[in-house]
Amino acid sequence: MEHRLVIIGGGFGGLYAAQSLKNAALEVTLIDRRNFHLFQPLLYQVATGWLSPANIASTLRAVLKRQKNARVLLGEAIDIDVNKRQVMLANGRVDYDTLIVATGSRHHYFGNDHWEALAPGLKTIEDATEMRRRIFLAFEAAEREADPMRVRALLTFIIVGGGPTGVELAGALGEIARDTLINDFRSIDPADARILLIEAADRTLTTYPAELSKKAEKFLSRVGVSVRANTIVTAIEHDAVITKRGKSVERIPCHTVLWAAGVRASFLGEILSEKTGAKLDRSGRVLVEPDLSLLNHPEIFVIGDLANYRQPTGQPLPGLAPVAMQEGEYVARLLRNRLDGKTTAPFRYKDRGNMAIVGRGSAVAYIGRVQLAGFGAWLAWLFVHIVNLIEFENKILVLVQWAWYYFRRNRAARLITGDTYTRQ
Amino acid sequence: MEHRLVIIGGGFGGLYAAQSLKNAALEVTLIDRRNFHLFQPLLYQVATGWLSPANIASTLRAVLKRQKNARVLLGEAIDIDVNKRQVMLANGRVDYDTLIVATGSRHHYFGNDHWEALAPGLKTIEDATEMRRRIFLAFEAAEREADPMRVRALLTFIIVGGGPTGVELAGALGEIARDTLINDFRSIDPADARILLIEAADRTLTTYPAELSKKAEKFLSRVGVSVRANTIVTAIEHDAVITKRGKSVERIPCHTVLWAAGVRASFLGEILSEKTGAKLDRSGRVLVEPDLSLLNHPEIFVIGDLANYRQPTGQPLPGLAPVAMQEGEYVARLLRNRLDGKTTAPFRYKDRGNMAIVGRGSAVAYIGRVQLAGFGAWLAWLFVHIVNLIEFENKILVLVQWAWYYFRRNRAARLITGDTYTRQ
Repeated sequence: MEHRLVIIGGGFGGLYAAQSLKNAALEVTLIDRRNFHLFQPLLYQVATGWLSPANIASTLRAVLKRQKNARVLLGEAIDIDVNKRQVMLANGRVDYDTLIVATGSRHHYFGNDHWEALAPGLKTIEDATEMRRRIFLAFEAAEREADPMRVRALLTFIIVGGGPTGVELAGALGEIARDTLINDFRSIDPADARILLIEAADRTLTTYPAELSKKAEKFLSRVGVSVRANTIVTAIEHDAVITKRGKSVERIPCHTVLWAAGVRASFLGEILSEKTGAKLDRSGRVLVEPDLSLLNHPEIFVIGDLANYRQPTGQPLPGLAPVAMQEGEYVARLLRNRLDGKTTAPFRYKDRGNMAIVGRGSAVAYIGRVQLAGFGAWLAWLFVHIVNLIEFENKILVLVQWAWYYFRRNRAARLITGDTYTRQ
Repeated sequence: MEHRLVIIGGGFGGLYAAQSLKNAALEVTLIDRRNFHLFQPLLYQVATGWLSPANIASTLRAVLKRQKNARVLLGEAIDIDVNKRQVMLANGRVDYDTLIVATGSRHHYFGNDHWEALAPGLKTIEDATEMRRRIFLAFEAAEREADPMRVRALLTFIIVGGGPTGVELAGALGEIARDTLINDFRSIDPADARILLIEAADRTLTTYPAELSKKAEKFLSRVGVSVRANTIVTAIEHDAVITKRGKSVERIPCHTVLWAAGVRASFLGEILSEKTGAKLDRSGRVLVEPDLSLLNHPEIFVIGDLANYRQPTGQPLPGLAPVAMQEGEYVARLLRNRLDGKTTAPFRYKDRGNMAIVGRGSAVAYIGRVQLAGFGAWLAWLFVHIVNLIEFENKILVLVQWAWYYFRRNRAARLITGDTYTRQ
């Protein structure tokens, strides 16, 4: 019987591992709760009515259709028996010889779980359509409202967290208010919208060089986004957010809060820790060995956002798509070597740079020591994302919609689905 | 003060009426529960994973952006006061001088409302993504199932109703099973799927010439669809459908039932009947005067699927997009004439023909006395639908996806959203 590899999670880590094992003498089973791989870096574009969900989702079965040694199982892993080497699913169980756990992370509210209903995060397609619903419903409700104070609250948008997702959401919201919705309303002027980006650190994009943060904030201010650095959120209420900056506390009347702050690793990390003694970091990520396996469990690997892989600097690798992809490819190479009886050097992340879009025609990026800001960075961003997007059809559909937006500033996918009865 | 026209419903009737009044000396208020116009004829393509919801939805505000005399109100009409001339919304009220009611219809289960949960119909975006979810989950569940009897039930799809929607759904399901999903699964062969199209009359497409029905049924049988004419559904259960043909009763084990049979007009018809004495037909449609107004209420018009307009033949006009469009345009012309003090001849529907798609590269159509079946009809279908689709960007996106499907037989929008934990 062939060696059975089970991969839990069809994100960048899991899918790249599976694909890199094409034609290997392994039986690969990829388990995911969803029937598609989600291209997370573009999720904020779904949340802001630019792209459709299907444009950034690729059916896992379609992607692995021609890979004879791979099968896909739609199921939710709820437990792992490391002694019997079995993954327990909500609807069955699967035996493994080698296991890769790549179930990523969810947004996290630092002990304020009740904030979730008031300030949705952005991890799934459903999260994105919920954000989209709230953003566009706020303008609709403002159009109908007579009381100017309430109009102001309805047109106040607060984004919590100034990392790449927060910056991208804020920039997109600024352009929605200033460009996309121009002339759409009769009672309000969407350009009156206040967009506040709240960040606990002293600047946005803390993982980027300080100069790029400055440039990003300049771009943001041009589309009406106010960055509030050194500020924390102490409470989120139905119609207001309370912030604290040093000793000054402010209550900001506001109806739409978007969460782009904390994430917490998948609960499978805790299960692995319990069963194998693996250590977890504060965010619930599993501390892995230099080859991404678990101590005393060379048959279990943890990759992607669920893994804490300490770099030589002592810092863990960030939760980014390129990290997960490289980790998936590394484990695939290691497994091929094992089949051939060869050893593999420890994992090393090749940092090819990083980039965040700030708005139409502008982005910030660093590639090694080269820093880019503005149109060039934006073109680089487009190129990298189109190249990495899975499925050729999606590349075309996304390009058409980007081009359309660039020239016409229209976001065609701004339909409000789900509950549209806007009782505030 | 200008004459206030209120239109309830932004479907084909309401939207075409509003657009046809561009630059008229009227203040137009278009009220809809949703923030978009839905291109219903392509909804089955969303239900079968071909197009994305946004591709067939156009934001009403975007469409009417440049029409200075029009405003859009997101709201749900719950009552009409015909004496005070007010429309009551869930969140406010709006005064009118003239009212157009164009709120369409919903699917209807002929007194078996509990069937709705088991056999969803196809009227809204949410209906379509729910159908999509059920169709693709059925294959997923079958892939995991060991019991061959249950696999057979999971791979049995029953479509109730052999009108255009039923035929289009059945044809698409046949192609999904035979083409799109080929090589996707490892335990099942999707081509084993049984697709049954159940129709109470003696043939499908009863509003089409008999010859075209025959041709459509031939196309359907080629992709594995069995048409069961003269058959009615007497019960829908969790895992089976009971049908009756003459005296023979059959219990068909089946997990996925799609409803394309009855529709019932919007409840605003009943309200109008109560308040004005207007008569309703068996489907709840309002019987209208030759100018589409209500008897003794020349200021109230009913158009689209909610209206029963008797043709000279005695038959009411069918619930089709072209009927609603022409009715909307007619009322707009009548209102312009009224402003000018002129009268308008009664409404006459110009039947430019009708067409239904049966599958990839084949459709049936009649245009006057000309009947078309096959590739030519399919090209005509594509052309008519692309031309009528609102918003240029959507035309491009839909064309790209149609072309892709034609050449690659791939349906990229088959993501399963909502509840994906497939407990059967």
